[in-house]
Amino acid sequence: MKVNDTQLTPLLFLERSAQVYPDKVAFVDSNRRVTYAELADHTIRLARALLATGLEPGDRVAYLAPNTLEMLVAHFAVPLAGGVLVAINTRLSPDEILYIVDHSGARYLLADTDLHPSIVPVVEKFGALDEIFTVPAPASADLIGGTSYPDLLDRGSGEPLPWRVDDEQSPISINYTSGTTGRPKGVLYTHRGAYLNSLSEIIHSSHSPDTVYLWTLPMFHCNGWCTTWAITAIGGRHVGLRAVDPVAIWRLIGAEGVTHFNAAPTVLITLANHADARPFDPPVIVTTAGAPPSPTIIAQMEALNARVVHVYGLTETYGPHTVCEWQVDWQNEAAPDRAILMARQGVAFIGVDPIRVVDDNMVDVPTDGSTMGEVVMRGNNVMEGYFDDPDATEHAFRGGWFHSGDVAVWHPDGYIELRDRSKDIIISGGENISTIEVEQTVMSHPAVLEAAVVAIPHEKWGERPKAFVVLKPGAEVRPEEIIAHVKAKIARFKAPDAVEIVDQLPKTSTGKIQKYVLREREWSTHERRIH
Amino acid sequence: MKVNDTQLTPLLFLERSAQVYPDKVAFVDSNRRVTYAELADHTIRLARALLATGLEPGDRVAYLAPNTLEMLVAHFAVPLAGGVLVAINTRLSPDEILYIVDHSGARYLLADTDLHPSIVPVVEKFGALDEIFTVPAPASADLIGGTSYPDLLDRGSGEPLPWRVDDEQSPISINYTSGTTGRPKGVLYTHRGAYLNSLSEIIHSSHSPDTVYLWTLPMFHCNGWCTTWAITAIGGRHVGLRAVDPVAIWRLIGAEGVTHFNAAPTVLITLANHADARPFDPPVIVTTAGAPPSPTIIAQMEALNARVVHVYGLTETYGPHTVCEWQVDWQNEAAPDRAILMARQGVAFIGVDPIRVVDDNMVDVPTDGSTMGEVVMRGNNVMEGYFDDPDATEHAFRGGWFHSGDVAVWHPDGYIELRDRSKDIIISGGENISTIEVEQTVMSHPAVLEAAVVAIPHEKWGERPKAFVVLKPGAEVRPEEIIAHVKAKIARFKAPDAVEIVDQLPKTSTGKIQKYVLREREWSTHERRIH
Repeated sequence: MKVNDTQLTPLLFLERSAQVYPDKVAFVDSNRRVTYAELADHTIRLARALLATGLEPGDRVAYLAPNTLEMLVAHFAVPLAGGVLVAINTRLSPDEILYIVDHSGARYLLADTDLHPSIVPVVEKFGALDEIFTVPAPASADLIGGTSYPDLLDRGSGEPLPWRVDDEQSPISINYTSGTTGRPKGVLYTHRGAYLNSLSEIIHSSHSPDTVYLWTLPMFHCNGWCTTWAITAIGGRHVGLRAVDPVAIWRLIGAEGVTHFNAAPTVLITLANHADARPFDPPVIVTTAGAPPSPTIIAQMEALNARVVHVYGLTETYGPHTVCEWQVDWQNEAAPDRAILMARQGVAFIGVDPIRVVDDNMVDVPTDGSTMGEVVMRGNNVMEGYFDDPDATEHAFRGGWFHSGDVAVWHPDGYIELRDRSKDIIISGGENISTIEVEQTVMSHPAVLEAAVVAIPHEKWGERPKAFVVLKPGAEVRPEEIIAHVKAKIARFKAPDAVEIVDQLPKTSTGKIQKYVLREREWSTHERRIH
Repeated sequence: MKVNDTQLTPLLFLERSAQVYPDKVAFVDSNRRVTYAELADHTIRLARALLATGLEPGDRVAYLAPNTLEMLVAHFAVPLAGGVLVAINTRLSPDEILYIVDHSGARYLLADTDLHPSIVPVVEKFGALDEIFTVPAPASADLIGGTSYPDLLDRGSGEPLPWRVDDEQSPISINYTSGTTGRPKGVLYTHRGAYLNSLSEIIHSSHSPDTVYLWTLPMFHCNGWCTTWAITAIGGRHVGLRAVDPVAIWRLIGAEGVTHFNAAPTVLITLANHADARPFDPPVIVTTAGAPPSPTIIAQMEALNARVVHVYGLTETYGPHTVCEWQVDWQNEAAPDRAILMARQGVAFIGVDPIRVVDDNMVDVPTDGSTMGEVVMRGNNVMEGYFDDPDATEHAFRGGWFHSGDVAVWHPDGYIELRDRSKDIIISGGENISTIEVEQTVMSHPAVLEAAVVAIPHEKWGERPKAFVVLKPGAEVRPEEIIAHVKAKIARFKAPDAVEIVDQLPKTSTGKIQKYVLREREWSTHERRIH
């Protein structure tokens, strides 16, 4: 081992915090208070257990769990054992989960027993898995089966493993997108990228050893935007949360002395408008992303004594990649104007290369605040690539930059402002919904001839899908029946809120559906085309 | 260029801050206010000028300058041109400077005209140099000769250069140690090490874009402990200072709204006991290193509304490597006890491997707070090696760890506490006596301002401690009283045999006490320096 070239890995973070803060509370939820020494011990035991079970270097380990202690431990134990973590969105449909488990080639699945019962029959079908382990939730019976988590841990031991990797460019996790075109893609994160992005998170969200971090953001989203690793690095306290429940959030903010949380704007809207809302005391730092926050919610959060750090990124960039960095002279702006400035997506993180907005020929668009172009990114927190998908990787990296698929304008001060998602994606409550996927499901109804799905504005969720449907000749079906059909097939949250039956869809001369025409109609009373 | 593997270099920091904060003041001194856009432009012009002059990749560029704008610019311009910065301690003798210029193989020297005139004849002898450039100081005539800095800049242009390096492991600077044993050695820093250490500095000293950093620490020391790069990274404001003058420091702290500075404990002693001393408003964060601060000065600084961040490291570790990380339960300690805890050197930085204290066989000493051993280090901010000195490098890295040469005890909580440089330790009748422990006990006497303890020869015991003491203004105390004070506080055998009251202690340019000067005097009649 070289004296001066330690390979970067988030494992170093837990090693350090367990040594520096052994008796400090690392994780707390309604049942447990776990110190950093205990967190490290739990991590070692699980890593040892996975190795005893047969885990080989690079093997994928899938997780289905809310923001529990076990999900946090997985972020260290799986890589400590040499494995690659695949944390799956628990709100996906059983078929989608099955696809991800199969595509990632996971050998093991660890699942929280509090999952929706519809998962059960699918879990039983997971032929490719070597073994399933179930993590008991406090208030649920085990409907899944498999080996229990305590039995798994019993296979391990407390014998230390080196908190080191041989190659910082090796994979640490795969995070599946809900891709715009069909199937989800597996985004590969490296130890180096996760390490560096964690340090950037600490700096931009002003974390310190006094941080008390509430887990409003799912850990299965970009590994919690790397906050799983960042809070552990700084020796802060994780506050677990099984579900985004505003009553519980407001209670925990007071009871645990929360100083920081991350959340999509839709969660902020829910919190700020809740009956329990009250000024934060002490003030909190709220890092928000997932959709552009409206100036209204930024101003509302500030009035509640929160400092809003607005960041933007994608699964492909380990979560946040830009930050709307504060400028001193914004102090002089009136609150509403300041909120408009703060609603921009901003500039590149300290740890990444400068961001660009380019035209179709990869030429920078003018920084005039009105010309639209695509946001492209480069740097150490751009993904290694899509797992087992070299074509998609090559396409995403064309021209030597990662193509976000997001359309933005570039302001004269270098700040970017998103104007539209790449044509199809719908962001509903922080979750991506692929319109193509919904369309295909709608079209699987026997009465449907053609369908187009677009985002429509929604007060609470930001955006919701609406389907425009052309029926087969002579067919008759009510909109509610189509919605029910979709809900039976894919995740319920992806089903359209509304179905409008039309005689025909607007099309180009070559027969391509002109979705923007439908969108324009639905958004005509809004100034922007995302919400 | 890879999409996701940008080589780490501090050059990225200035690129970003010039884009994000173009109009923000980056550097200020009594004559100039320079924005980040101007800092980047100046940097590009100098890099272009050096290239036009003939600089080849890897060429060394030597600097002799106090904490000026030009010295800061050099930290970016020299590496931007592909060169390696050699910032030389301006207070060295002409012969020492000549040795460093020759040993580093520098092709160019840039020197501030405010240097001591004795430098001039030596500079004229620099046969190996291709060219000398002089940077005009505000109030000094140019006694050095050579090409003027403005003329040098005229050779360049504002045409951008890529803020990138091909290999993050390539050298960025060489910092010469002030070897008390023989010739100075050139410590090689890499772009990767400087980048990562800068991020650690930001985190541990709590820097933010609001930082106003006063340059009390020389930039020629470990590149200002990498703070040259760190403050630029976060977009803070550098406040230049040509000399450590307490009147100027107290004035600037108020006038510039200083939030942070770094200084050796002896500088803190000077500031805290100065007539202009007053509570910091707003509070400041003072990062201190260079020698173990006494609990007395820590308590004094805290009383002045400073938060003291106590770090420890060596030139070979890019400056700071450990930090005395605060523990929550220290709040409950009385101020003097808390200061004792805070005077320990602590635990490894967030960006480096855990520190160890080992015996001669590289076995960890017990963490009992009393067994002494050598501090050894590993991680990304251990030097690449000594320039052009493979033997010294191999010796320093024996056993796969960097050997600090510092003797410490290891407390049960994992914190280290320095007891001596290995060469300073006193061996009296077979017992080790830590001069640091004796000094801190002497300084706890209310009449004492500063103290240094060295070994003196003793017929029976081999060595015994002797204290050199500077009293506070107006204070009067007899040596016997000080000896009695020490005997009442620590083991009697550790009390000095003699106390000599002196007007001042011999110090290096950074305020480190030169114990070897005191030792030389005491041992001048002996052939060896141990007994």
